[in-house]
Amino acid sequence: MVEAAKLISVIGAGAADERQKQDAFQVGQLLAQAGWGVVCGGLAGVMTEACRGCATAGGLTVGLLPGNEHDAANQWCRVVLPTGLGQARNALVVLAGQGAIAVGGEGGTLSEIGHAIKAGRPVVSLGSWRVEGVPQAESPEQAVRMLLDMLER
Amino acid sequence: MVEAAKLISVIGAGAADERQKQDAFQVGQLLAQAGWGVVCGGLAGVMTEACRGCATAGGLTVGLLPGNEHDAANQWCRVVLPTGLGQARNALVVLAGQGAIAVGGEGGTLSEIGHAIKAGRPVVSLGSWRVEGVPQAESPEQAVRMLLDMLER
Amino acid sequence: MVEAAKLISVIGAGAADERQKQDAFQVGQLLAQAGWGVVCGGLAGVMTEACRGCATAGGLTVGLLPGNEHDAANQWCRVVLPTGLGQARNALVVLAGQGAIAVGGEGGTLSEIGHAIKAGRPVVSLGSWRVEGVPQAESPEQAVRMLLDMLER
Amino acid sequence: MVEAAKLISVIGAGAADERQKQDAFQVGQLLAQAGWGVVCGGLAGVMTEACRGCATAGGLTVGLLPGNEHDAANQWCRVVLPTGLGQARNALVVLAGQGAIAVGGEGGTLSEIGHAIKAGRPVVSLGSWRVEGVPQAESPEQAVRMLLDMLER
Repeated sequence: MVEAAKLISVIGAGAADERQKQDAFQVGQLLAQAGWGVVCGGLAGVMTEACRGCATAGGLTVGLLPGNEHDAANQWCRVVLPTGLGQARNALVVLAGQGAIAVGGEGGTLSEIGHAIKAGRPVVSLGSWRVEGVPQAESPEQAVRMLLDMLER
Repeated sequence: MVEAAKLISVIGAGAADERQKQDAFQVGQLLAQAGWGVVCGGLAGVMTEACRGCATAGGLTVGLLPGNEHDAANQWCRVVLPTGLGQARNALVVLAGQGAIAVGGEGGTLSEIGHAIKAGRPVVSLGSWRVEGVPQAESPEQAVRMLLDMLER
Repeated sequence: MVEAAKLISVIGAGAADERQKQDAFQVGQLLAQAGWGVVCGGLAGVMTEACRGCATAGGLTVGLLPGNEHDAANQWCRVVLPTGLGQARNALVVLAGQGAIAVGGEGGTLSEIGHAIKAGRPVVSLGSWRVEGVPQAESPEQAVRMLLDMLER
Repeated sequence: MVEAAKLISVIGAGAADERQKQDAFQVGQLLAQAGWGVVCGGLAGVMTEACRGCATAGGLTVGLLPGNEHDAANQWCRVVLPTGLGQARNALVVLAGQGAIAVGGEGGTLSEIGHAIKAGRPVVSLGSWRVEGVPQAESPEQAVRMLLDMLER
């Protein structure tokens, strides 16, 4: 028997500013330090930084790509899964994790917040969409703590 | 050569209150009167009423179901497509239309609003999620007019 | 209440020879004459000809496209659904019909035959893959007759 | 930078006989010994045994489930991804690997062979469907050797 990796979905756009990238890096790092891996959309920006933070802290990283080719993944994904599904892969990104942290983000991230709510996955916003029922964190530390608290309940 | 049906996505939850159902019915009816068909998730509540409004006014109705079985569709869908995709079918519902009107709704509807933004489909909210950049309509008439105006630009 | 369109999946490659195109056209035509519509992948070759045969005989045609854009559809699709799913849309093409007829075809068509078997949809091969348990028809007439017979059982 | 795991898709049915289970176990074991991980549908039968063979030999195992729940995975998956896609997840199973080995199997496996051909992934049959252009191996050793040879070319 193998212990399944415990994963948190980190969601956010490929086009991210410096603050969002730093936040994503720290979220990934804090998750790894708490024993979690990261699953994300496998591309640039928030996705790259969350993977880099997680991987450099020893955590497992999984990227679910929209296209068909492995080499579109960022260089910090340990498990690269080209889905070929386009934006429908967003539903898979949030199903894969036990919960989700949204860092910045655009329409795709909003779709993931919606899929998380629908699937009953707890989700925390860190400088992402302001949506009724989704708690807002002020820092990476708070975002990770809030989410892990929600998962323990 | 056949003229492809022009479709608008009507999105909203299966669990809807009376006001939302009436709104959805009228949205479907107004769309049909303006020469549009309706594509939706094919189930109950907002989806049923939007199809009923559209079909009784002579419009084409398309339902993209989450499951594998045709008979889960509501009785007002002319074209029933069981996708088997679960919630990932939400991405398809908004891709299928030229634009979307959200009536009420829960997490699934929010995911559809996000997918619409990502895919560049204009979207109007009628008593649905308050999301930055998504215009709010006060009535079915206004929702349909706003969306059709956005499509003409 | 609206009567849902009865659809048969016609599967086959975009790259088809003359014989396959004629076969596909006739299959579409015979299905329409028997009261059925056609659902397919919405692109060229077998898909175009099956739609053309069906539409010109008054049947409903539905195309489930792999990409995101409506305008990739052939000109004989009445209902155009861009899925954005890439090849995963093949599973949807066979779920949409009550049964399937394969005309010629390559890897994608083989995947559809497999999905049809898995989903319990009867499937007939007309110059397509020779697969255990899939009956081979010698002509469009025989293919349509065999499939409709299987559906009545 | 993290080295992405190299994965081979092992495809086959949940309902497998003793011979198929032994074959799947050995295929997984040989792949791990050659430095490869296994990606599969994450369920029972061939999928469980391929994961068990791979994991007990130190390889990485990934399961792409058809449903929404992590706990449907077999106990030898290190990375569990509930896709919610039903049978459409078969397209993802073959995209995830560099190539595929089919052990026994039913309609779902045939769909995966078709998706592999379409996606240009080499595929070897070990007591699975006899399909034109798909080489048949006589033993797990031969199947793994044939596939790895095809990948090196």
